Amino acid sequence: MAMEAGKLPTAGKPIRCRAAVSRKPGEPLVIEEVMVDPPMPHEVRIRIICTSLCHSDITFWKMKDPPGCFPRIFGHEAVGIVESIGENVDEVTEGDVVVPTFMSDCGECADCKSKKSNLCSKLPFKVSPWMPRYETSRFKDLNGEVLYHFLFVSSFIEYTVVDVAHLTKIDPAIPPNRACLIGCGVSTGVGAAWRTANVEAGSTVAIFGLGSIGLAVAEGARLCGAARIIGVDTNPDKFEIGKKFGVTDFVNAGNCDNKALSQVINEMTGGGADYCFECVGLASLVHEAYACCRKGWGKTVVLGVDRPGSQLTFSSFDVLHSGKSLMGSLFGGLKAKSDIPILLRRYADKELRLDEFVTHEVGFEDINKAFELLIEGKCLRCVIWMGK
Amino acid sequence: MAMEAGKLPTAGKPIRCRAAVSRKPGEPLVIEEVMVDPPMPHEVRIRIICTSLCHSDITFWKMKDPPGCFPRIFGHEAVGIVESIGENVDEVTEGDVVVPTFMSDCGECADCKSKKSNLCSKLPFKVSPWMPRYETSRFKDLNGEVLYHFLFVSSFIEYTVVDVAHLTKIDPAIPPNRACLIGCGVSTGVGAAWRTANVEAGSTVAIFGLGSIGLAVAEGARLCGAARIIGVDTNPDKFEIGKKFGVTDFVNAGNCDNKALSQVINEMTGGGADYCFECVGLASLVHEAYACCRKGWGKTVVLGVDRPGSQLTFSSFDVLHSGKSLMGSLFGGLKAKSDIPILLRRYADKELRLDEFVTHEVGFEDINKAFELLIEGKCLRCVIWMGK
Repeated sequence: MAMEAGKLPTAGKPIRCRAAVSRKPGEPLVIEEVMVDPPMPHEVRIRIICTSLCHSDITFWKMKDPPGCFPRIFGHEAVGIVESIGENVDEVTEGDVVVPTFMSDCGECADCKSKKSNLCSKLPFKVSPWMPRYETSRFKDLNGEVLYHFLFVSSFIEYTVVDVAHLTKIDPAIPPNRACLIGCGVSTGVGAAWRTANVEAGSTVAIFGLGSIGLAVAEGARLCGAARIIGVDTNPDKFEIGKKFGVTDFVNAGNCDNKALSQVINEMTGGGADYCFECVGLASLVHEAYACCRKGWGKTVVLGVDRPGSQLTFSSFDVLHSGKSLMGSLFGGLKAKSDIPILLRRYADKELRLDEFVTHEVGFEDINKAFELLIEGKCLRCVIWMGK
Repeated sequence: MAMEAGKLPTAGKPIRCRAAVSRKPGEPLVIEEVMVDPPMPHEVRIRIICTSLCHSDITFWKMKDPPGCFPRIFGHEAVGIVESIGENVDEVTEGDVVVPTFMSDCGECADCKSKKSNLCSKLPFKVSPWMPRYETSRFKDLNGEVLYHFLFVSSFIEYTVVDVAHLTKIDPAIPPNRACLIGCGVSTGVGAAWRTANVEAGSTVAIFGLGSIGLAVAEGARLCGAARIIGVDTNPDKFEIGKKFGVTDFVNAGNCDNKALSQVINEMTGGGADYCFECVGLASLVHEAYACCRKGWGKTVVLGVDRPGSQLTFSSFDVLHSGKSLMGSLFGGLKAKSDIPILLRRYADKELRLDEFVTHEVGFEDINKAFELLIEGKCLRCVIWMGK
């Protein structure tokens, strides 16, 4: 029987390829040959072009207890090319350029149909070791041992399998080492300002933590026309970096002249910032952010998660009397399939800055170097090229 | 020198009149003659036509420790007629019909000028025993002892003095025993649905606590076009009352068949209510309300305050991953001078229901009867007529 048009000879068969396998928590990844099953119905197998390292990869790579699990294939910011599709996939086809996302956008459930939610009900977000629809793995090592998935993406591998609800087709003209950033971190920050908070032009924004996410919030706030973007960090070097992304003022949280951080911000802004974004993942900093918000209308947006079980506590009097609101932002409130193309178009139109986030690029064999750079705080995003 | 046109002969002089003075916490009010000073600059002296009793009066009347203080003149839902004005008052004049409010609307500060805030910065809300601008009292008993103010209104008296920033001129055709309700409780509830939450037509609302405030939230949600209004209370009798204000479903919080309240509401609504309003003032119920909110877009609005120092605690994971928001609502987010006339016009147009809130009316000399009725849970609002 002749091969169907467009299909690669690998379609329908397991692929043997290289993966950077994380076998033990905190230990260097091992590049080894593995087997990747063909996509099941609603799934797509893609060849990864490049991938970038995000802090969440490191958090789970270090995690000795559940939901940490090993051996696992990390990576969840990537660009790939569709190699083959499973049954019931008509949204993408072989050769399409796609960005996988840890958040699903099934297009069918009440959340995906609503403009107000990006939390797909059909394939809800969770930190699972499996594919989202079947709770099974598509990866095995050459001894037949199952390798676990990560965030429904697992991009530290030459070929991965992703549910079509987790894939967005993109313009192939966008450089992949820029497009990959849109899969998680940059989108999370830009979206938090744009979609979750809906920052008004002319407003004042305070960002707690100027890592990649915080800088992406600044970039989003800048795109929304914020007049003043205050970066808060304990490392003054971050201010120079922040300026590239629209940060106009800097507060050194470690040196506030014996004033509370909220007092400093309140004095700077004449009563508080219109929007405060917590980008570190410290419950205590969420409280600071809430205190730094303008009474009457201030919004506090939580982007980081503290350790499991951590709690946010507010005085009920403050909540009632402050006129402030509190909200979380997962993946920046973005709906992947509609918002990713918008953001990439804005990049192509030179409105959204992505180039500045990529501080390092390495080949696949040097993937552990990317881990070192991010852990040492020496990079914003390190792009890992898979090679041909 | 001839009397100025329009001025009453009492203008500029202290007025001797009757007040219901609260001399000791929890003890019946004593109707006695007192002296009311003329208004200072920016102040207005008004003759009270009628006043209604609100739960906050009772809370502070019972309060033995600060901010409870005695002797005090309670009452903060009222309608009056301007008797005389102090210097620098040009917004109202003698004979105008006015509603005083515990919230100021100075019209000059950043908050009053913003559409987004109702928390006046110039004369901020606090539970003070004084007039807002001078921190002094206008009341003395016949022995010369100072009588304290309450919530900048103190309407259990024939003549009171109110800062002009706390007064809204209203259409004199509105019956005063309806207009007085708009000074606090009804506005707080209706406004929470209308202004704070901005309830969308067709949405589902859950209201925790069907007292006057909760019923007013229902009325506000009904006006906004909510499709389904779920009342939650431990007293099933409240459902019959609630139906008058648009409550479509009832959940007996005391009898959920061993299910968590949030499970019941989630099952009824297929995932949670679009808006949840906590109207009791229990931190634990705020958590229930938050849990009953639809993930992805649910808003939890806090209207009640628990005892001083009480705290609201949320899992940071839930805040980040739920897409829900939390906000407080003081005076329903209403801006008194612009929103009260709108609500009273809607009452005149038979859209907003006020009549149904008035379950009892008594003469001034029977004011302690109003306290008994409200404490016994036998009334929604009892209007107290001052007599001529």
